[in-house]
Amino acid sequence: MKFIIQRNRLIDSVQDVMKAVSSRTTIPILTGIKIIASEEGLTFTGSDSDISIESFIPTEEDGDELVEIKQTGGVVLNARFFGEIVRKLPMDSVEIEVLGQHQTIIKSGKAEFNLNGLDPDEYPHLPQISEENVFSIPTDLLKTLIRQTVFAVSTSETRPILTGVNWQIEEGVLTCIATDSHRLAMRSAPINFEQAEVCNAVIPGKSLIELSKILDDSSNPVEIVITDNQILFKSKNLLFFSRRLEGNYPDTSRLIPTDSKTELVLHAKDFLDAIDRASLLARGERNNVVKLATLEGKLIEISSTTPEIGNVVEHIQSQSIEGEELKISFSAKYMMDALKALEGTEIIISFTGAMRPFIIRSVNDDSILQLILPVRTF
Amino acid sequence: MKFIIQRNRLIDSVQDVMKAVSSRTTIPILTGIKIIASEEGLTFTGSDSDISIESFIPTEEDGDELVEIKQTGGVVLNARFFGEIVRKLPMDSVEIEVLGQHQTIIKSGKAEFNLNGLDPDEYPHLPQISEENVFSIPTDLLKTLIRQTVFAVSTSETRPILTGVNWQIEEGVLTCIATDSHRLAMRSAPINFEQAEVCNAVIPGKSLIELSKILDDSSNPVEIVITDNQILFKSKNLLFFSRRLEGNYPDTSRLIPTDSKTELVLHAKDFLDAIDRASLLARGERNNVVKLATLEGKLIEISSTTPEIGNVVEHIQSQSIEGEELKISFSAKYMMDALKALEGTEIIISFTGAMRPFIIRSVNDDSILQLILPVRTF
Repeated sequence: MKFIIQRNRLIDSVQDVMKAVSSRTTIPILTGIKIIASEEGLTFTGSDSDISIESFIPTEEDGDELVEIKQTGGVVLNARFFGEIVRKLPMDSVEIEVLGQHQTIIKSGKAEFNLNGLDPDEYPHLPQISEENVFSIPTDLLKTLIRQTVFAVSTSETRPILTGVNWQIEEGVLTCIATDSHRLAMRSAPINFEQAEVCNAVIPGKSLIELSKILDDSSNPVEIVITDNQILFKSKNLLFFSRRLEGNYPDTSRLIPTDSKTELVLHAKDFLDAIDRASLLARGERNNVVKLATLEGKLIEISSTTPEIGNVVEHIQSQSIEGEELKISFSAKYMMDALKALEGTEIIISFTGAMRPFIIRSVNDDSILQLILPVRTF
Repeated sequence: MKFIIQRNRLIDSVQDVMKAVSSRTTIPILTGIKIIASEEGLTFTGSDSDISIESFIPTEEDGDELVEIKQTGGVVLNARFFGEIVRKLPMDSVEIEVLGQHQTIIKSGKAEFNLNGLDPDEYPHLPQISEENVFSIPTDLLKTLIRQTVFAVSTSETRPILTGVNWQIEEGVLTCIATDSHRLAMRSAPINFEQAEVCNAVIPGKSLIELSKILDDSSNPVEIVITDNQILFKSKNLLFFSRRLEGNYPDTSRLIPTDSKTELVLHAKDFLDAIDRASLLARGERNNVVKLATLEGKLIEISSTTPEIGNVVEHIQSQSIEGEELKISFSAKYMMDALKALEGTEIIISFTGAMRPFIIRSVNDDSILQLILPVRTF
């Protein structure tokens, strides 16, 4: 293997595939990045047991020569060292050559690195995924779907299925649901995918977070293929594989109340800032819990106390308060997460009593819903 | 005590004095910030056992009213909570009032915080320092003096005196010296201070780092007063006290070689980048050690090896090599620290053999010198 490549393209591809490489793997070859040089270009692969990422650099793009392949072949190089080296190379052009026994020479200007490589044939094969059942989502929408739900997955391994986001496809609508059993985030979007049966997959939250980091902010389509135990995301010159979580995701539809006893309409930013301030002194017995109470004159009182330190009270003006009076306590963190995900300027919060889950929606957008379970303090 | 203040000025002063507040203090009142409102303005004080910082906000500055004092008095407020609260207040104006038993109300817009304060009379008094023996240095020069030496102090407490920077004033010249016994940094500057006897103080490195963070980048003078066990830095509306380290600083003058057997003149940036690259593979028996060898044709070879992973070799062109051939090994980190401190574009390195300390200077600047002890590997 021997090729000459523009350093910046090399850095981008190496950084992308490194997101899948874990230093804590028990399979030594997975601490490496696989590089394959073919007549068409260069393929970089990084993987741990959950995520695999493949980045391709064609020899030519839009008439620009990106890579000059002098000899085809392949090697596996230690990801951490190789990643640091390519970022610090002195010149814009880099030559990489594999000699006998996978010895790899990396030359740029007058700097010459010699890395001990491994046999690329020993690198695990990525899953072969058939190109049936493909649908696509614009990149920016996919990132929004992830951002608005993934924060609500469970971080505890006691119920592993809850560490993933449930993707349901039914009648041309993709619905993403995440819950840690104290709160729930749900977002749906229409997709162009005609399938007779309901498709239901649970994707690890960690995979979605890494995917989000790797995708650009364009509206280019990302193709998605769901198989029995994998999900594949295909963007331009990039393949992102994630395993699916096994098991049945709980039926969350019954959790979401359909009636309401008290409804508030609020300016989201004012409410978020007040919750943020109240959280500063929410260090009582139950950490990070703030109180909300409805008052006369469409006023809402937000308050919290930290024993020995002090307390805070703030009144905010709502657009409207309908229904019964209410006093309720909830996690400031969950509320702030939900409000940040909603993005709306005007929000509506529907309560069905101080001890029942309540839902937060955007006034002008039905595609997203956030649910929070209250805490008993009043 | 009762006053109304612009939020931004309050944030600045609180952030400045918080740099002296440690959460790990054994004296409870020192976890607080002391606030004193007088007819002239507000004084904020933060302190741990080593550093004390006082920030003053006058009622008026350049015709602008900064603080409206409604009632004089004082209180001590928990630094962490108070600091977080002032940063998140909703409006540009803040009212702070102390009621009975040091209960303090902080009001901004519709947010009202109630903090339990402590008695300001129980806060330790700052040292009284007489205004004799004052000299001054422009702020930017003071920050440069600190930056160019403080990185070389020892981080180990085995010889506490070496965790400080030695300031010597003799015949109108201030010389700052730091060493951890493996390397040494020295920088001198003329000052306008006529004193008969030699002044010699060792200032904790940590104090100088905090001082540097707090000072702006102006050329306004900072007044400096050195007393028996304290050093005081006075900038506009700011007092910064640090204790001095006790004990005798070692005589470092004999460490610095006066002759040389090999002299290199180099472009600093090229050399720094080559050392940085070589350090990537400098993970051998002795961590972070790179090798330097002189070659024919004014070339210098920089190399390093990490067993099992690989090695790197780079040739750089020097302006000149004079004297004996040389092979020497040294810490890449020490060399990079020294080169970054030097700031010069052209540097001169003077060696007196592979096992003797060598010195690095800027070709055009005699006021700064860096010294490094080599490592035995050749």
